[in-house]
Amino acid sequence: MVLVRHEIGEVLRDIRMSKRQTLRQVAARAAVALGYLSEIERGQKEVSSELLFSIAEALDVPISQIMREVSDRLATAEGINIPDTIPAELFDSVNGSLLNLR
Amino acid sequence: MVLVRHEIGEVLRDIRMSKRQTLRQVAARAAVALGYLSEIERGQKEVSSELLFSIAEALDVPISQIMREVSDRLATAEGINIPDTIPAELFDSVNGSLLNLR
Repeated sequence: MVLVRHEIGEVLRDIRMSKRQTLRQVAARAAVALGYLSEIERGQKEVSSELLFSIAEALDVPISQIMREVSDRLATAEGINIPDTIPAELFDSVNGSLLNLR
Repeated sequence: MVLVRHEIGEVLRDIRMSKRQTLRQVAARAAVALGYLSEIERGQKEVSSELLFSIAEALDVPISQIMREVSDRLATAEGINIPDTIPAELFDSVNGSLLNLR
Protein backbone atom coordinates (compact mmCIF):
# COMPACT_ATOMS: atom_id res chain seq x y z
CA MET A 1 0.00 0.00 0.00
CA VAL A 2 1.45 3.36 -1.07
CA LEU A 3 1.06 5.79 1.86
CA VAL A 4 1.26 9.53 1.27
CA ARG A 5 2.51 10.26 4.80
CA HIS A 6 5.67 8.21 4.19
CA GLU A 7 6.57 10.35 1.18
CA ILE A 8 5.58 13.61 2.91
CA GLY A 9 7.80 12.69 5.85
CA GLU A 10 10.78 11.88 3.64
CA VAL A 11 10.37 15.05 1.60
CA LEU A 12 10.11 17.23 4.73
CA ARG A 13 13.24 15.64 6.17
CA ASP A 14 15.16 15.95 2.88
CA ILE A 15 14.26 19.65 2.58
CA ARG A 16 15.22 20.28 6.21
CA MET A 17 18.56 18.50 5.77
CA SER A 18 19.28 20.33 2.50
CA LYS A 19 18.78 23.60 4.40
CA ARG A 20 21.04 22.37 7.22
CA GLN A 21 18.33 22.88 9.80
CA THR A 22 17.92 20.77 12.92
CA LEU A 23 14.64 19.20 14.00
CA ARG A 24 14.77 21.55 16.98
CA GLN A 25 15.05 24.68 14.82
CA VAL A 26 12.20 23.75 12.49
CA ALA A 27 9.98 22.50 15.33
CA ALA A 28 10.47 25.78 17.18
CA ARG A 29 9.63 27.93 14.16
CA ALA A 30 6.62 25.76 13.23
CA ALA A 31 5.45 25.71 16.87
CA VAL A 32 5.25 21.91 16.93
CA ALA A 33 6.72 19.50 19.47
CA LEU A 34 10.10 18.16 18.38
CA GLY A 35 8.99 14.55 18.93
CA TYR A 36 5.88 15.06 16.84
CA LEU A 37 7.84 16.59 13.94
CA SER A 38 10.21 13.65 14.15
CA GLU A 39 7.31 11.20 13.91
CA ILE A 40 5.94 13.09 10.90
CA GLU A 41 9.33 12.92 9.18
CA ARG A 42 9.47 9.17 9.82
CA GLY A 43 5.99 8.75 8.29
CA GLN A 44 4.52 7.57 11.57
CA LYS A 45 2.05 10.42 12.05
CA GLU A 46 -0.32 12.10 9.63
CA VAL A 47 0.27 15.84 9.32
CA SER A 48 -2.77 18.13 9.41
CA SER A 49 -3.12 20.75 6.68
CA GLU A 50 -2.60 23.54 9.21
CA LEU A 51 0.59 21.97 10.55
CA LEU A 52 1.92 21.31 7.04
CA PHE A 53 1.37 24.99 6.32
CA SER A 54 3.39 25.94 9.43
CA ILE A 55 6.19 23.49 8.64
CA ALA A 56 6.38 24.74 5.03
CA GLU A 57 6.67 28.29 6.34
CA ALA A 58 9.33 27.23 8.85
CA LEU A 59 11.28 25.60 5.99
CA ASP A 60 10.60 28.58 3.71
CA VAL A 61 9.32 26.32 0.93
CA PRO A 62 5.95 26.59 -0.87
CA ILE A 63 3.53 23.77 0.00
CA SER A 64 3.02 23.23 -3.73
CA GLN A 65 6.71 22.42 -4.11
CA ILE A 66 6.56 19.94 -1.24
CA MET A 67 3.52 18.22 -2.75
CA ARG A 68 5.07 18.22 -6.21
CA GLU A 69 8.06 16.31 -4.86
CA VAL A 70 5.69 14.01 -2.94
CA SER A 71 3.79 13.35 -6.16
CA ASP A 72 6.99 12.52 -8.05
CA ARG A 73 8.08 10.05 -5.38
CA LEU A 74 4.61 8.49 -5.25
CA ALA A 75 4.80 7.98 -9.00
CA THR A 76 8.06 6.11 -8.56
CA ALA A 77 6.55 4.07 -5.72
CA GLU A 78 3.58 3.27 -7.96
CA GLY A 79 5.91 2.28 -10.77
CA ILE A 80 4.53 5.00 -13.04
CA ASN A 81 7.76 6.84 -13.82
CA ILE A 82 9.30 6.05 -17.16
CA PRO A 83 12.78 7.37 -18.08
CA ASP A 84 12.24 10.71 -19.86
CA THR A 85 14.41 10.04 -22.86
CA ILE A 86 13.79 6.35 -23.45
CA PRO A 87 10.28 5.12 -24.31
CA ALA A 88 9.29 2.01 -22.35
CA GLU A 89 9.21 -0.22 -25.46
CA LEU A 90 12.67 0.90 -26.51
CA PHE A 91 13.92 0.41 -22.98
CA ASP A 92 12.63 -3.16 -23.06
CA SER A 93 14.27 -3.79 -26.41
CA VAL A 94 17.56 -2.35 -25.12
CA ASN A 95 17.36 -4.64 -22.13
CA GLY A 96 16.51 -7.45 -24.50
CA SER A 97 19.57 -6.66 -26.65
CA LEU A 98 21.79 -6.60 -23.61
CA LEU A 99 20.43 -9.96 -22.60
CA ASN A 100 20.98 -11.30 -26.10
CA LEU A 101 24.61 -10.14 -26.06
CA ARG A 102 25.42 -12.23 -23.03
CA MET B 1 -3.62 29.99 4.76
CA VAL B 2 -3.30 27.45 1.94
CA LEU B 3 -4.75 24.14 3.17
CA VAL B 4 -3.89 20.91 1.40
CA ARG B 5 -7.16 19.21 2.40
CA HIS B 6 -9.19 21.80 0.44
CA GLU B 7 -7.32 20.98 -2.76
CA ILE B 8 -7.40 17.23 -2.10
CA GLY B 9 -11.15 17.42 -1.59
CA GLU B 10 -11.73 19.35 -4.79
CA VAL B 11 -9.50 17.06 -6.82
CA LEU B 12 -11.22 13.92 -5.49
CA ARG B 13 -14.63 15.37 -6.31
CA ASP B 14 -13.54 16.50 -9.78
CA ILE B 15 -12.14 13.05 -10.59
CA ARG B 16 -15.31 11.37 -9.29
CA MET B 17 -17.54 13.68 -11.35
CA SER B 18 -15.41 13.21 -14.48
CA LYS B 19 -15.94 9.46 -14.08
CA ARG B 20 -19.67 9.98 -13.55
CA GLN B 21 -19.62 8.21 -10.21
CA THR B 22 -21.88 9.03 -7.29
CA LEU B 23 -20.65 9.61 -3.74
CA ARG B 24 -22.53 6.44 -2.84
CA GLN B 25 -20.69 4.32 -5.41
CA VAL B 26 -17.22 5.55 -4.47
CA ALA B 27 -17.93 5.40 -0.73
CA ALA B 28 -19.08 1.79 -1.07
CA ARG B 29 -16.01 0.72 -3.05
CA ALA B 30 -13.63 2.58 -0.72
CA ALA B 31 -15.44 1.21 2.35
CA VAL B 32 -15.93 4.67 3.83
CA ALA B 33 -19.12 6.26 5.16
CA LEU B 34 -20.85 8.40 2.52
CA GLY B 35 -21.05 11.38 4.88
CA TYR B 36 -17.36 11.14 5.66
CA LEU B 37 -16.38 11.02 1.98
CA SER B 38 -18.60 14.04 1.40
CA GLU B 39 -16.82 15.95 4.18
CA ILE B 40 -13.45 15.01 2.69
CA GLU B 41 -14.54 16.29 -0.72
CA ARG B 42 -15.66 19.57 0.85
CA GLY B 43 -12.27 19.93 2.55
CA GLN B 44 -13.80 19.69 6.02
CA LYS B 45 -12.01 16.50 7.10
CA GLU B 46 -8.42 15.41 6.74
CA VAL B 47 -8.02 12.15 4.85
CA SER B 48 -5.68 9.54 6.29
CA SER B 49 -3.08 8.00 3.99
CA GLU B 50 -4.82 4.62 4.20
CA LEU B 51 -8.19 6.10 3.26
CA LEU B 52 -6.68 8.11 0.41
CA PHE B 53 -5.24 4.86 -0.89
CA SER B 54 -8.69 3.23 -0.78
CA ILE B 55 -10.41 6.19 -2.44
CA ALA B 56 -7.77 6.30 -5.19
CA GLU B 57 -8.36 2.60 -5.82
CA ALA B 58 -12.13 3.14 -5.84
CA LEU B 59 -11.66 5.92 -8.42
CA ASP B 60 -9.11 3.83 -10.34
CA VAL B 61 -6.57 6.69 -10.34
CA PRO B 62 -2.95 6.54 -9.10
CA ILE B 63 -2.36 8.48 -5.88
CA SER B 64 0.58 10.18 -7.59
CA GLN B 65 -1.79 11.63 -10.21
CA ILE B 66 -4.13 12.92 -7.50
CA MET B 67 -1.24 14.56 -5.65
CA ARG B 68 0.20 15.98 -8.86
CA GLU B 69 -3.09 17.74 -9.52
CA VAL B 70 -3.21 18.87 -5.88
CA SER B 71 0.30 20.29 -6.25
CA ASP B 72 -0.67 22.20 -9.40
CA ARG B 73 -3.70 23.74 -7.71
CA LEU B 74 -1.66 24.61 -4.61
CA ALA B 75 0.84 26.41 -6.85
CA THR B 76 -2.00 28.49 -8.27
CA ALA B 77 -3.33 29.17 -4.77
CA GLU B 78 0.18 30.22 -3.70
CA GLY B 79 0.46 32.50 -6.70
CA ILE B 80 3.48 30.61 -7.98
CA ASN B 81 2.24 29.89 -11.48
CA ILE B 82 3.63 32.21 -14.09
CA PRO B 83 2.33 32.15 -17.67
CA ASP B 84 4.46 29.62 -19.57
CA THR B 85 5.27 31.79 -22.54
CA ILE B 86 5.87 35.16 -20.90
CA PRO B 87 8.78 35.56 -18.46
CA ALA B 88 7.86 37.51 -15.33
CA GLU B 89 10.14 40.46 -16.19
CA LEU B 90 8.67 40.74 -19.68
CA PHE B 91 5.19 40.49 -18.22
CA ASP B 92 6.00 43.42 -15.93
CA SER B 93 7.40 45.45 -18.80
CA VAL B 94 4.30 44.69 -20.90
CA ASN B 95 2.14 45.89 -18.04
CA GLY B 96 4.40 48.92 -17.74
CA SER B 97 4.04 49.66 -21.44
CA LEU B 98 0.29 49.36 -21.22
CA LEU B 99 0.32 51.78 -18.31
CA ASN B 100 2.57 54.19 -20.24
CA LEU B 101 0.20 54.15 -23.22
CA ARG B 102 -2.68 55.45 -21.15
